[in-house]
Amino acid sequence: MIQTENSGYKGKALKSLRRAGCDVGDIVQVLSEDRKYEGILIPRSETGEGDHVVVKLKSGYNIGIRMTPGVTINKIGEGLKPTFATPPIPKQKPDLPKVAIISTGGTIASRVDYRTGAVRPALSASDLYGVVPELADIARVETKILLSLYSENITPKHWGEIAQAVSHQISSGVDGVVVAHGTDTMAYTAAALSFALQNLPIPVVIVGAQCSSDRPSSDAATNLTGGVRIAAKAPFAEVVLAMHETMSDTAIAVHRGTKVRKCHTSRRDTFQSINASLIARVNENEISMLTSDFRKRNAANLPIVKPDFSQDVALIKFHPGFKPTLIDWLVEKGYRGIVLEGTGLGHVSKYCFDAVQNANDRGVVVALASQCIWGRVNMHVYDTGRDLLDRGAIPLDDMLPETGLVKLMWVLGQTKGTEEAKKLLKTNIAGEFSPRTLSDDATM
Amino acid sequence: MIQTENSGYKGKALKSLRRAGCDVGDIVQVLSEDRKYEGILIPRSETGEGDHVVVKLKSGYNIGIRMTPGVTINKIGEGLKPTFATPPIPKQKPDLPKVAIISTGGTIASRVDYRTGAVRPALSASDLYGVVPELADIARVETKILLSLYSENITPKHWGEIAQAVSHQISSGVDGVVVAHGTDTMAYTAAALSFALQNLPIPVVIVGAQCSSDRPSSDAATNLTGGVRIAAKAPFAEVVLAMHETMSDTAIAVHRGTKVRKCHTSRRDTFQSINASLIARVNENEISMLTSDFRKRNAANLPIVKPDFSQDVALIKFHPGFKPTLIDWLVEKGYRGIVLEGTGLGHVSKYCFDAVQNANDRGVVVALASQCIWGRVNMHVYDTGRDLLDRGAIPLDDMLPETGLVKLMWVLGQTKGTEEAKKLLKTNIAGEFSPRTLSDDATM
Repeated sequence: MIQTENSGYKGKALKSLRRAGCDVGDIVQVLSEDRKYEGILIPRSETGEGDHVVVKLKSGYNIGIRMTPGVTINKIGEGLKPTFATPPIPKQKPDLPKVAIISTGGTIASRVDYRTGAVRPALSASDLYGVVPELADIARVETKILLSLYSENITPKHWGEIAQAVSHQISSGVDGVVVAHGTDTMAYTAAALSFALQNLPIPVVIVGAQCSSDRPSSDAATNLTGGVRIAAKAPFAEVVLAMHETMSDTAIAVHRGTKVRKCHTSRRDTFQSINASLIARVNENEISMLTSDFRKRNAANLPIVKPDFSQDVALIKFHPGFKPTLIDWLVEKGYRGIVLEGTGLGHVSKYCFDAVQNANDRGVVVALASQCIWGRVNMHVYDTGRDLLDRGAIPLDDMLPETGLVKLMWVLGQTKGTEEAKKLLKTNIAGEFSPRTLSDDATM
Repeated sequence: MIQTENSGYKGKALKSLRRAGCDVGDIVQVLSEDRKYEGILIPRSETGEGDHVVVKLKSGYNIGIRMTPGVTINKIGEGLKPTFATPPIPKQKPDLPKVAIISTGGTIASRVDYRTGAVRPALSASDLYGVVPELADIARVETKILLSLYSENITPKHWGEIAQAVSHQISSGVDGVVVAHGTDTMAYTAAALSFALQNLPIPVVIVGAQCSSDRPSSDAATNLTGGVRIAAKAPFAEVVLAMHETMSDTAIAVHRGTKVRKCHTSRRDTFQSINASLIARVNENEISMLTSDFRKRNAANLPIVKPDFSQDVALIKFHPGFKPTLIDWLVEKGYRGIVLEGTGLGHVSKYCFDAVQNANDRGVVVALASQCIWGRVNMHVYDTGRDLLDRGAIPLDDMLPETGLVKLMWVLGQTKGTEEAKKLLKTNIAGEFSPRTLSDDATM
């Protein structure tokens, strides 16, 4: 009989499964009025609502089926139950660097029974070595499960906790830290750690996976291996995000934490450095530096941890038909910062000018980024830009709007003073501003 | 002495210029405490505030300098005054197609004195032929100045007016229509016209320019020529956006109006087709079709004009620390539609679920797109997606968030019924949904 605690099932789904005598690993048939699915019943990966059962089809795809009144489930075959045999921890090689892996959740942080697709957090060292045995040749890995969250549920408070956990690992003397994270908001967290962790002695590498490891094409093992290699051996001491560079398995791209963005819903090369070159690439197990502009690894550095973020900051995307009363409302509700994602070089309509002026007059920091994503805001080309500057708006140059949001949250976590906040916002803290290049100026 | 009506100057700037006896075209020196600029005084391109003077430097760049108390301006040389000699309209060749150019403003709609950079709207046929004489070999061009707006000030009401104006030109028997538009919100307008103008007999081509035509590298003439060629001769009858395909001058890319996005603040190849291939390319004066999937030009088609858009729709970008009370406020304020720009496959945090449910219960249409931009939302992979579907959210598949916003504004301009609106939102009207491809499914 199915066990709630093992399977993750509850509610209607659990009832239906109990009624049918189905257990995880069994071969089941799900019937509705117009559809039929056959496959292996797999556990839920994260406890959520109780309406769906999840079946792994012959094709290898998982499908969630909602147990509405017309839907029935039958057991049609006995399956092997998922087992998570724990392999022995390989003998640690004392000459290898020490790497800490901190898990926050997401696809990469889970371990999968390859036959059934059963998923569970797999961040004990022995589990990890079981899934990715080659890690034992790269580093002595220590693991810590800090959070177990889908990354859309990560908040600025969690960023602070992750920063503290990284700092704790650094104090314990590791040679590098890997943070395993869901990909949805991984770039926001990368930016947050870039501001919260300063004067680092070692690399801090955020990794994730786009494909769950129950698919033959999973990118989880490669990204994790690449991440551990960077943490163990890279010559820099910055917060970076490491993921597949292309659709193939050959190279891991290393992005600066403040200059990276998730640009595709599903592809493994989803993360792109925006307005910046990659810091490094891992290929054929070798790390190649791609820029000379990086902070060097230096064991003597004492990290400075500034883990406070204000949640009273909004990222607002301007669009035709945008009503400036939204800005007025944010000011009334006590927001302390607003990042406007303007059009083109950093514009919003003239109908917004009064609202921006009012926000500025009331001590709210208003910053301007561009929804174009690539390029640089320039408030000196058109009247609109100058009008916004005159109303106190701070141009974010070539900073990503998402990085701008995270930075303003961090800035307002550091100071209560508006002028000090504006000054800090304009200061290059972690490579979030790139130097101006000729091609930036093409329209000036 | 400087003339307000000719120069666009007013306020402090005008006073300073009068005091110094400077006129447009003069060589001037502007001095502040720590800077000195020399160049030609040029007129303001659009009447705005009265604090800045604009000087064309030797480098060819224009710079705006604010006339604060410490800043002085001196005339150091007599310059030629800008002249806009109106060339004769070339003899129209009666065998050429007829193309109407409707101007709404923006860089492309202006004509510039090449020496001083003086700008004025140049949409009379003779002005156009003066600036781009090769047009006379492509089409008999008629011109209409409909609006003269920076495109960040274009609203959904203007979209309706542009649609009506295009329809009026079609009734008059032209072979194609070109709409000249500022680039900032050009893609939003392209999507709007795609929904508002159905069953088109001829192409409707939106063009703009990234570089003002006072720069030797301006893309204005090439884009306009390409746009007129497409309007005159292309075999399709759709709303498209035509702009430079690359940084060089060789090719004009033709994008479907619903699948295009401005992706760089300043580069001339800023517009990219997202989740769709180009419709066509203009190269060496030849139009090559790049897809067989298009609506054919057919003079017998009677256009259907549906110019109404609801302004009670918001585009809201989810981010870590996003507060769902913003959604509650939109519902209270009577918004009828909300497009959520979620993370990854179309997620928002679980803290937003109640607000989404409440919006749905109150008859507000909530749609979900992805801030990744590329790829396709898929609400069936993770619990979060299923939870949002259960709360009535409509996935926008591979539609751009911006197109989703425009479509929802249009849908709610067509119907008052929530269910009918949801149905219309899910119906492919103008190629805004692309067929699912294998690579879309990489994470399923």
